Amino acid sequence: MTDFDTQSLRLHEQHRGKIETGIKGALETSDDLSIAYTPGVAEPCRLIAEDSSRSFDLTSRGNTVAILTDGSAVLGLGNIGPAAAMPVMEGKAALFKAFAGVDAWPICVDTQDTNEIVNLARLLAPTFGGINLEDIAAPRCFEIERQLQDLGIPVFHDDQHGTAIVLLAGLINAAQLVGKELTDLSVVISGAGAAGTAIAQLLRCVNQDPELCIPVREIVVCDSRGAIHAHREGLSPEKSAVLAYTNRDNREGSIHDVLEGTDVFIGVSVGDLLDGDDVRRMNDDAIILAMANPQPEILPDVAKAAGAAIVGTGRSDFPNQVNNVLAFPGIFRGALDVRAPRITAKMKLAAAFALAEAVGEATADRILPDPLDRSVPPKVASAVASAAQS
Amino acid sequence: MTDFDTQSLRLHEQHRGKIETGIKGALETSDDLSIAYTPGVAEPCRLIAEDSSRSFDLTSRGNTVAILTDGSAVLGLGNIGPAAAMPVMEGKAALFKAFAGVDAWPICVDTQDTNEIVNLARLLAPTFGGINLEDIAAPRCFEIERQLQDLGIPVFHDDQHGTAIVLLAGLINAAQLVGKELTDLSVVISGAGAAGTAIAQLLRCVNQDPELCIPVREIVVCDSRGAIHAHREGLSPEKSAVLAYTNRDNREGSIHDVLEGTDVFIGVSVGDLLDGDDVRRMNDDAIILAMANPQPEILPDVAKAAGAAIVGTGRSDFPNQVNNVLAFPGIFRGALDVRAPRITAKMKLAAAFALAEAVGEATADRILPDPLDRSVPPKVASAVASAAQS
Repeated sequence: MTDFDTQSLRLHEQHRGKIETGIKGALETSDDLSIAYTPGVAEPCRLIAEDSSRSFDLTSRGNTVAILTDGSAVLGLGNIGPAAAMPVMEGKAALFKAFAGVDAWPICVDTQDTNEIVNLARLLAPTFGGINLEDIAAPRCFEIERQLQDLGIPVFHDDQHGTAIVLLAGLINAAQLVGKELTDLSVVISGAGAAGTAIAQLLRCVNQDPELCIPVREIVVCDSRGAIHAHREGLSPEKSAVLAYTNRDNREGSIHDVLEGTDVFIGVSVGDLLDGDDVRRMNDDAIILAMANPQPEILPDVAKAAGAAIVGTGRSDFPNQVNNVLAFPGIFRGALDVRAPRITAKMKLAAAFALAEAVGEATADRILPDPLDRSVPPKVASAVASAAQS
Repeated sequence: MTDFDTQSLRLHEQHRGKIETGIKGALETSDDLSIAYTPGVAEPCRLIAEDSSRSFDLTSRGNTVAILTDGSAVLGLGNIGPAAAMPVMEGKAALFKAFAGVDAWPICVDTQDTNEIVNLARLLAPTFGGINLEDIAAPRCFEIERQLQDLGIPVFHDDQHGTAIVLLAGLINAAQLVGKELTDLSVVISGAGAAGTAIAQLLRCVNQDPELCIPVREIVVCDSRGAIHAHREGLSPEKSAVLAYTNRDNREGSIHDVLEGTDVFIGVSVGDLLDGDDVRRMNDDAIILAMANPQPEILPDVAKAAGAAIVGTGRSDFPNQVNNVLAFPGIFRGALDVRAPRITAKMKLAAAFALAEAVGEATADRILPDPLDRSVPPKVASAVASAAQS
C-alpha cells in the first residue's frame, strides 16, 4: 500500500466514512421541536402541496444533489459494485459541500440495468435538486443521461462532461500558449469510453451551440485496439457513432501510428501507453494531457524531454492537474442557484470558458487553476447561471 | 396560522430546509484530497469489493438510515405527495441526528405503487444501514414492510411500531399506577390504520415473542363507522384480519357504545371524538391516550373532570406526550450498533420496556419520559442492541 492508501484507510476506519447529516436550526427546546417538526412543519408541507416548486426553497431539495452510481466503472477499479463505490461517492459529496456548499448524498444502486436506473432516478426526483451520475460504465451512462434530460432537474454525468469541460479549459489555454488556433488542432484521444466520447463531442462541437463552440480541426479516437476507423470490424454502435465526427481521413493503425503529425494527445485510458518516440512523432509544441490514474499514459518528464511543450495529467503531484473538482461543484452550484431544469450545452461551454479564464496569466505549468483554489467554483457557478438564463 | 406555523415557515424559508451534508475529516490541502478522494480512496473501495460487509465500517453506510416515504399519509395532512412530505422527513432526519447521532436522509419517492416502492428500497439497500418507512398509507405500508424484512438491513415503519412501542411503554406505567394488570385491561382503539393496527397487534402479542409479551385481555378496534366486528359488511381484508385478535365478544355499535365498561382508550384517529360522558361510561381509573394531532380525541381537562385517572396526548403542551421521538432514534441506534439485519419483535418489546423504565418513578403526569430527555435514546439503544444479540 502507498502512503495515501494507508492514510485513507485510517481516515475511513476512524470516521466510518466521510459525510454525515448536519442540522440547520435548533432542536433543544420543546418549542424548537414544535417549529422544526410537529405541529409547525405542517405549514411548509401545505404550501408545497399547493405548489410543488416551493419544495426548492422551503426544503433542502433546492440545494441537494444525488450522486447516483451503479458502481460499474469506479475510478481505475472497474465494476466493483454499489457498496464498494461508496467511498468514492462520499468523497464526491464532501467535495460538493466543501467547494460549492452543495448538499450531496450518495445513491449507490444495486442494479446495472439501464431501465431500472432511469426509473429509480425518476422516482427519486422529488427528493433532489439535481442528479450527478457517477462512475457508470459506457455505453449505459449515455442512455441513462439521455433519457433523464426531461426530468425537470439537472442530470449530469460528471465522468463525461465534467472531464470534457476541464479538458477543454486546459486546451484553450495550452493552444494559446503554443500559438495555435483550436480550429487548426489535430487531436488524438486514447480511450473511447464515457470520458473519451464526451471529450471528442465537445472538441468537435457535436450537440453544442454552433455560435459559441469552436471545433478542433480533426480528432482520431483510439481504443485498446488502435484507431477507430470506418473499416474496423465489430465496432459497437457507440464507437461507430464516434466516426460521424472523428477520423475524417479514416486513419488506421495503432495509437503510435496515428499520433504522427498531430498536435494534441488526450489520454483517458491506461498508464504507460506512450514513450518519447510517440511524442517525437507529433508536431512541434505538442500538447499532452495524459489523464490515466494513478499512472498517466506518459510521465511529464518523459514527454517534456521528447519535446512536448505542455503536459498535464490527472495527478496533483505534477503541474496542470486536470481535475473534475474544478468543474462539477461550480456547475451544479450555478444550475441550482437559478433552478435550471437541465445542464445545457451552453452552460457546459460557459463553464469551460470561465475555467480557462480563471487561470489569469496562463503558463506552460499553469494551464488550469489549482484544484484547491476556492475562488474558482463561484466563477464557474456564475458563468453557468448566466448561461442558463440567457 | 398559529404562532408555530408562522415560526416554522420562517425557519424553512430562512434555512431552506433543516438538514445538510456535513464533512468528516479535512479537505483543505492537496494531501487531504489524495486521502479522502483519489488516489487514496481506492483502498477502502478495494476492501469493500472483497468483503461487502466492510461498507458498514468503512463508509457512512453503517450509521445511515433512509427515511422513505411516498407522501401518502403525512401527519394529519393525508396524501400530499412526495415533495410536500419533505419537511416532515427532514424534521425526522434532524431528530435522528440530534437524539441518536444517526445520519438519516429523506427519500421521497414519486410513486404510490407497492411493488415500485419495494423494488426501489431493494435497489437502495447498498447505500443505507437501515430504512425507516414513514407516512405511507395503510394497507400499503404493511405489505411494503413485510416484503422488505429479508433485505439484510433493518426496515421499520415508525408510524406503526414506533407509535405502538411508545404507547405500550406509557400503558405499562399507567396500568401500574392505577393498580391494574395488563392482562386484565379491556381496551378500545380508535383508528384502524397503520398505528391502530400495530398497537392492537403489540398489545395482543400478535407476532410477538410469547415468552416476553404480556397481552391485554381484550381490544375492540373502531374506525370511523364504529366497532370492527364480525357481522360488519364490506370490511377490507386488513380490517377483517384485525378480528383474529380483537373483539372476542363481537361487540357492535359506535365507539361511544363500546367504551362502556372498558379500562383504556387509545386514540390514533381524529380530534374532538369523545366527551366526558364517554369517559364516565368507562371503568373507574380510566386511562386515556388520545393521540390525534394537533387536536386530541378528548382534551385532558375534559377527560380528567369526567374521572379519568391518567391522560396522555400527542402534544407537548400537555403532560404525558406520546411522542415517537422517544423510540425511533434509540431503536435504530441500537440496531445499527450491532448491525442487526432486522428489527425483531423482541427488540421492539425491549425498547418499550426500556422506555417504561426510563421514567424512573412514574406519576399520573409522568407515565413517559420527557421527549427532550437525551438520556433516553441511549437506554433504548442499549436494550435494543442486547435484544438483537440475545
